[in-house]
Amino acid sequence: MSEQVDDAARRIPEASVARLPLYLRALSSLAEAGRTTVSSEALAAAAGVNSAKVRKDLSHLGSYGTRGVGYEVDELVQHISSALGLTRRRSVVLVGVGNLGHALAGYGGFASRGFWIAGLLDADRSRVGETIAGVVVRHMDDLDEVVRAGDVSIGVIATPARAAQEVCDRLVAAGVTSILNFAPAVLQVPDGVDLRKVDLSIELQILSFHEQRKSGIPA
Amino acid sequence: MSEQVDDAARRIPEASVARLPLYLRALSSLAEAGRTTVSSEALAAAAGVNSAKVRKDLSHLGSYGTRGVGYEVDELVQHISSALGLTRRRSVVLVGVGNLGHALAGYGGFASRGFWIAGLLDADRSRVGETIAGVVVRHMDDLDEVVRAGDVSIGVIATPARAAQEVCDRLVAAGVTSILNFAPAVLQVPDGVDLRKVDLSIELQILSFHEQRKSGIPA
Repeated sequence: MSEQVDDAARRIPEASVARLPLYLRALSSLAEAGRTTVSSEALAAAAGVNSAKVRKDLSHLGSYGTRGVGYEVDELVQHISSALGLTRRRSVVLVGVGNLGHALAGYGGFASRGFWIAGLLDADRSRVGETIAGVVVRHMDDLDEVVRAGDVSIGVIATPARAAQEVCDRLVAAGVTSILNFAPAVLQVPDGVDLRKVDLSIELQILSFHEQRKSGIPA
Repeated sequence: MSEQVDDAARRIPEASVARLPLYLRALSSLAEAGRTTVSSEALAAAAGVNSAKVRKDLSHLGSYGTRGVGYEVDELVQHISSALGLTRRRSVVLVGVGNLGHALAGYGGFASRGFWIAGLLDADRSRVGETIAGVVVRHMDDLDEVVRAGDVSIGVIATPARAAQEVCDRLVAAGVTSILNFAPAVLQVPDGVDLRKVDLSIELQILSFHEQRKSGIPA
């Protein structure tokens, strides 16, 4: 790790990092609802975490809130965004423009968090030239050029499962150092490359738990 | 809450419930890689949680593992699936068959976790009759019938933001008691209805944190 790294970022435990986006999501909802301050208890409830953990996680960012008032919503959004590196625009290349790729390319939640789609790529030449959300689809063979020109560090895989590992290997070879995998496949990456997999059913599983409790039928 | 509810499910704290799908995702990857046992440390690393928390969460399910061996992967998958109510098939209605709705309808991760799409609905009559992933799209006006016939308790909203609240209200009126919202809108639901919102950029934000650390540029 470089010596220039921000001290705050260095100290944040991995499990806290994973909760910061949940706080950000909750804070965004509160801000949209017109709230300017929030207690750790209310933020905890909105994020589905206990309030002692919220206070501890936020203390890693140097955010302590004010007794009897809580946290300033806007200020906390800034602190968390900064800790996550969202205040700097990050270039993303998205591979696979099927239904999911289409949906992701048009997803407002990426741009609002500072992610910029520098390129849309597909192995299918019949898709090349199509414009999706303002970006022209290019062929997979242009990957190196897209990554270099857009200073891309993050690759998003939205291909069918069978193509995912090859696409992953090509992304890594092109210099991408973080991979977000939406394909239902287990991928291998070399050391130094971060890999995360999205499971779209996770929130549905949490709802299932509550449905089970509501229905009163034992598991 | 009904007296018939399973005791184990009753005791699990909300924050633990939210982590169970993460363990399930990690365990599925381990199983696909041929692993039959896993230590709490290895499971913790794969799920991005600390190992003491893993042990505590799993103890709520009555899973304690074996000293020096860890947990049996298959057995733990069963315990977690059972606690989340995934061993019983849950019927889901999905509203909005744009790109995201298409992608969700064809998403293998729902079926593999026991979620069955009992209906695909859209307000656009030109989409009605189309078959997606084996299910024929019906008009939103058929909602009550689809919910009743399919014994649907969970509604998934994949509409544009402007339509989401009205769709949510109609789902609740039809008897749906859990809502998963993919639309970029803040929704209101009455007491007794569970609402969760998916933010597709959450994993990307975690990668951003690591990119920031790797690049050595302070936030």
